[in-house]
Amino acid sequence: MGLGIGDDCAVLAIPPRHQVLVTTDFMLEGIHFRREWHPPESIGHRCLTRGLSDIAAMGGEPLAAFLSLALPRNLPQSSVDRFLTGLLNLAGKFGVSLAGGDTAESPGGILADIVLVGSVPKGKAILRSRARPGDRIYVSGELGGSAAALRWMREHSKRKLDPRAFARHFFPEPRLQLGRVLREKGLASAMIDISDGLSTDLAHVCEESGVGAELRAEAIPVASIGKPARKVGLHVALHGGEDYELLFTVPPGKSVPARVAGMPITHIGHITRSKKMLLVEKGVVRELIPQGWQHFTE
Amino acid sequence: MGLGIGDDCAVLAIPPRHQVLVTTDFMLEGIHFRREWHPPESIGHRCLTRGLSDIAAMGGEPLAAFLSLALPRNLPQSSVDRFLTGLLNLAGKFGVSLAGGDTAESPGGILADIVLVGSVPKGKAILRSRARPGDRIYVSGELGGSAAALRWMREHSKRKLDPRAFARHFFPEPRLQLGRVLREKGLASAMIDISDGLSTDLAHVCEESGVGAELRAEAIPVASIGKPARKVGLHVALHGGEDYELLFTVPPGKSVPARVAGMPITHIGHITRSKKMLLVEKGVVRELIPQGWQHFTE
Repeated sequence: MGLGIGDDCAVLAIPPRHQVLVTTDFMLEGIHFRREWHPPESIGHRCLTRGLSDIAAMGGEPLAAFLSLALPRNLPQSSVDRFLTGLLNLAGKFGVSLAGGDTAESPGGILADIVLVGSVPKGKAILRSRARPGDRIYVSGELGGSAAALRWMREHSKRKLDPRAFARHFFPEPRLQLGRVLREKGLASAMIDISDGLSTDLAHVCEESGVGAELRAEAIPVASIGKPARKVGLHVALHGGEDYELLFTVPPGKSVPARVAGMPITHIGHITRSKKMLLVEKGVVRELIPQGWQHFTE
Repeated sequence: MGLGIGDDCAVLAIPPRHQVLVTTDFMLEGIHFRREWHPPESIGHRCLTRGLSDIAAMGGEPLAAFLSLALPRNLPQSSVDRFLTGLLNLAGKFGVSLAGGDTAESPGGILADIVLVGSVPKGKAILRSRARPGDRIYVSGELGGSAAALRWMREHSKRKLDPRAFARHFFPEPRLQLGRVLREKGLASAMIDISDGLSTDLAHVCEESGVGAELRAEAIPVASIGKPARKVGLHVALHGGEDYELLFTVPPGKSVPARVAGMPITHIGHITRSKKMLLVEKGVVRELIPQGWQHFTE
């Protein structure tokens, strides 16, 4: 424990009658980002988003972040400063303090591990395991924009993308306010953040809940990216990761507004009793196979 | 978040009127261990000890561990299993669950980051910042044994040490019971674990408390290691890291037994008003300079 903290542990106060939420996520050079593609501010921002998005997916309130950061000896201090600027700007926006961490010399590449600690009123965390047959499936925002930007960089390795024009990839927003409102209103029976792609994350919900799902291809909110804006393909919206939107299920009889906490919400399908995931496209039903998300290969 | 957990976050219950303790520590190949020196069980054990020892140093109770683990693609599964065996055996001994974490492919070497979450009754955490002039300084156990084993391996790079004969280095014990008893009895004014070496960790206490210290060289409990057992040098006991013993200060008028929670306790000096650290050896006073601990160089 060596980062901005005087004691061996950080001491955090949790609101009365709350439970603690903890999540930990790697952000590794060559696996989750590339120095030649991602400006340091984007790496810091995306690092914290990974953790905050997990808190959002539980309907939780973030309290504090802990950053373990191993750096190559030859990394310029300006890069470290810019990484921390990206991370701390986002932390400030959500009132999260950087309460500790560890630092080390890296044996190879920039290695970050982000830990988020949050809280949620006792028994109110929104789990993956509570989806029931008949529940409708919703997602926030648009899907595929982040993965499409990555694919573009892979295919045009000599040209850089302007991070501001592709904010969905470089500066994704964790949906904390949306998660909180869904929990407060008791709307969502199950929830997950879409970090590994819609097909993979929906599969996690189905597996944990012991159910299946049926999606309507035409309903999936496919992202538009770039300038001029172009729609990404359905494949990347179904399988691309790192959008950090929320996927949630809603029991029959509960109505969901078109926007919640300022975010557009789209009804994309429903939960089924059979344990398969199906995709209905132009009247044709096929099985939807989760593809797993890998950042730099497809 | 991908390790043995169904949701985006782990949900932990904290005892009523307790605060949460959080600590995070790297364990990186080539920085904190070497695969040719350290059996996988030892790496897993030492990884968890780093975190548990931080909880001990606050007088806390460990609740749950989170492990972020990035592995090279070619690492044999048996090594991963043995690493986890070492970690889980120690976790079981202290009733700590492995509640989550993350996994990734490593861009180079085995990379672990261990997070420990614990709790302590509100306001009762033992901090580094509460040492006062006149307080006596104590350490548990013996010092220098871990660093001496590392030095031996560095100097005899072709021969291996038997981990069982050098348990102080390969399987160090976190002093959780000692930390808890010191907190319950209200004995310690300040505490830290000796992970970076006595000189460096005492300097942290002095800096955080705005005080100095005077140590008696003859009083320092120098470790005996190997078979037949040999005493390590004073230098390594003063500056060697990773013993994971506790250093604590006790206000005047409070008496400390020779053993607490089964651990021998040694009075090695006292806190002073001047902000220097001094070492008295055979009647000669010299300044004690913290040397910082680096695992594979001195």
